[in-house]
Amino acid sequence: MTSSDRVTATYLIETAFPLEQAATTMAGEQSTGTFVRVPGETDALREAHAARVEELVELGDVAAPSLPGSGLPKGGDDARRRTARVTLSWPLANFGPSLPNLLAAIAGNLSELKAFSGLKLVDLKLPPTFLDRYQGPQFGVAGTRALAGVHDRPIIGTIIKPSVGLSPEATAEQVRVLVEAGVDFIKDDELQADGPHCPFDARISAVMRVIRDHADRTGKKVMYAANLTGEIDEMLARHDHVLAEGGTCIMASMNSIGLPAMKVLRAHSQLPIHGHRNGWGMLGRSPALGMSYIAFQKLWRLAGIDHTHVNGIDNKFCETNESVIASARECLTPMFDAPHPGCEILPVFSSGQSVMQAAATYQALGTTDLMFAAGGGIMAHPHGPAAGVRALLLAWEAAVAGVPLADAARDAPELRAAMGAFGG
Amino acid sequence: MTSSDRVTATYLIETAFPLEQAATTMAGEQSTGTFVRVPGETDALREAHAARVEELVELGDVAAPSLPGSGLPKGGDDARRRTARVTLSWPLANFGPSLPNLLAAIAGNLSELKAFSGLKLVDLKLPPTFLDRYQGPQFGVAGTRALAGVHDRPIIGTIIKPSVGLSPEATAEQVRVLVEAGVDFIKDDELQADGPHCPFDARISAVMRVIRDHADRTGKKVMYAANLTGEIDEMLARHDHVLAEGGTCIMASMNSIGLPAMKVLRAHSQLPIHGHRNGWGMLGRSPALGMSYIAFQKLWRLAGIDHTHVNGIDNKFCETNESVIASARECLTPMFDAPHPGCEILPVFSSGQSVMQAAATYQALGTTDLMFAAGGGIMAHPHGPAAGVRALLLAWEAAVAGVPLADAARDAPELRAAMGAFGG
Repeated sequence: MTSSDRVTATYLIETAFPLEQAATTMAGEQSTGTFVRVPGETDALREAHAARVEELVELGDVAAPSLPGSGLPKGGDDARRRTARVTLSWPLANFGPSLPNLLAAIAGNLSELKAFSGLKLVDLKLPPTFLDRYQGPQFGVAGTRALAGVHDRPIIGTIIKPSVGLSPEATAEQVRVLVEAGVDFIKDDELQADGPHCPFDARISAVMRVIRDHADRTGKKVMYAANLTGEIDEMLARHDHVLAEGGTCIMASMNSIGLPAMKVLRAHSQLPIHGHRNGWGMLGRSPALGMSYIAFQKLWRLAGIDHTHVNGIDNKFCETNESVIASARECLTPMFDAPHPGCEILPVFSSGQSVMQAAATYQALGTTDLMFAAGGGIMAHPHGPAAGVRALLLAWEAAVAGVPLADAARDAPELRAAMGAFGG
Repeated sequence: MTSSDRVTATYLIETAFPLEQAATTMAGEQSTGTFVRVPGETDALREAHAARVEELVELGDVAAPSLPGSGLPKGGDDARRRTARVTLSWPLANFGPSLPNLLAAIAGNLSELKAFSGLKLVDLKLPPTFLDRYQGPQFGVAGTRALAGVHDRPIIGTIIKPSVGLSPEATAEQVRVLVEAGVDFIKDDELQADGPHCPFDARISAVMRVIRDHADRTGKKVMYAANLTGEIDEMLARHDHVLAEGGTCIMASMNSIGLPAMKVLRAHSQLPIHGHRNGWGMLGRSPALGMSYIAFQKLWRLAGIDHTHVNGIDNKFCETNESVIASARECLTPMFDAPHPGCEILPVFSSGQSVMQAAATYQALGTTDLMFAAGGGIMAHPHGPAAGVRALLLAWEAAVAGVPLADAARDAPELRAAMGAFGG
């Protein structure tokens, strides 16, 4: 293997120890280091297999430890906790191009190390050798656009609500309202996969009947992301059912199924995979612990997802707009240099989205290669769901043209009403 | 389904909102609630499918929000953040006995809710219906003891170090030293599964040759936990190789493979599964976010692990002794009432363990149904590894007999030396 066959991972750390020492501890723990030097730990072995500290950039101090349980150097000053950005690298020869084993190295027994009162994985870069083992997204942005028949504007999406409790028939009725309103994309809620009162196969059959009828009449086949999250055999069978019913998308909760199951699903799938990130907050919300979405989504893109949620501008959750936009940009940024595929995927904006966020989203991202998903922003439009969809399309036209929303709304009652309803 | 077919989950929350309102928000978000009331959200649907707040116990206030991004009630007082323990329940009918879908409900889009500056899942209780779908541990404590041939005392374990860099032959040489020293159990490091310089099949063949030879000579077959973490087809093939070589244990990194892959592995396996928890710190270290190990290990026990790490008393990581012991106790506590199987598993104590922690571990746990794993505590014993193992056995004999370590060491040079080396 060449020297370019190294994996690099970047962390934000917080420590009472000298930064060099702290970074060296991380590298040692996750490669050749041992608490007590053992006979097998030769210099040659360390040379070939030790993780390296590639970069260390000191950032500001913090007033108090962010996490409990950390230790102090002998004679150390508890008051001073430095923070830094550290980049480590590993020879791929330590674990091979295996995502599950990569994870144990870059995100395994690190966060609990006593030297740190904060440690978060914020980015990673993988050598293209991983593409020999992982297929990456099958459809990505272009393939999803082709299947949805949507070009040169965002894909307008929405979700089935309430999340649980609707029967297959009631779900299909809601889908009828939504496809007639003109949406491009509808997804199951992550809370509904195969509940006893809304079995997957029955739901998809009922929903696809509506979608096919609508396509026959209008020529527009709405993409429905069928939440097939479950055990592996269940997911493969559900995929086949979606395909047989003429469906064009499947959805799986990433944290629920794990990377190996996603790899199997990707190998089997003939449809785009909508990667739902629920549970992400457990990993991502603390600035001092876990994993950024920048790092997280790279693992899942390689495993094969085509879309993923990035939250949205001024969302109803805790994520900042900066973080939302950074995640979305990353989805559209190649993971590997040409001639390798870049594995770009479609970022999905959602959570409290309405006409009010179109301009800011476009300005921050500079592209319409995204899905813009609205629930209340469509269903709660004062003139009904069709006006809700129309208003979103107009808001995006205005955003791309650089026309202020209020100007665009002058001759557009749907947009005016949406601004009134959601602009509070 | 009966009313006992409910899932309950307990959380620690921190919020600036009135506690009742905050708890109701959680329940709504994770079941029938919608930001904007939609037509399908009928009273009957809510009655049948809404999550309920079962208990709400106010705890102390905190001075400042533990996590960023949380919101305030209108006119709320930023200075006051209440904490509470909240128990919610869901009808199983919302998701069925499916661990991946359970996860989306109890640990999905919750941690990012704006009403909370802290939210951690600390416990859960599942109805026995899950046992129709999940097999639970195949070997557990009794089956592992039978295979390892160890009764009425802890299973003494150790680990291959350095973690990476050893060839299959060098690994086997280290195993030779360890089996001759008298250990009961040896595990791969989680950083070594199938690295290009130490391929799984070659390593296991080399290691098992040593273990079989030793068994032929002594009658004692040491249990070797072969780290087969990888993709699903790889893991099944590696299991078969271990079995063919006469191995008696496999190991997988839980966070690397996910619950569905573990279910497949369990269904296929004829060997105990050592569930490695590396990466656990990302979920568990923050008191304000993530998931306790109490909750986490229940999911994995049901999926089929037989052993899991609980860290150790006075460990080298950040976990408190209280947390370590609570996890270990939980492993040995039935998950379901008789006549259902309790799914008890073997807790594995490790990290900086030596003769010094035997008494405290026994006093806290009140049983020897555990694995006590030491690396340096064996290899770095001044009289060599055999003395290291002997000292651990003596320390545990003393612990069970209630004899102070210093007294037991009077006529036991191995124990005396261990106290000198590790008692600092």
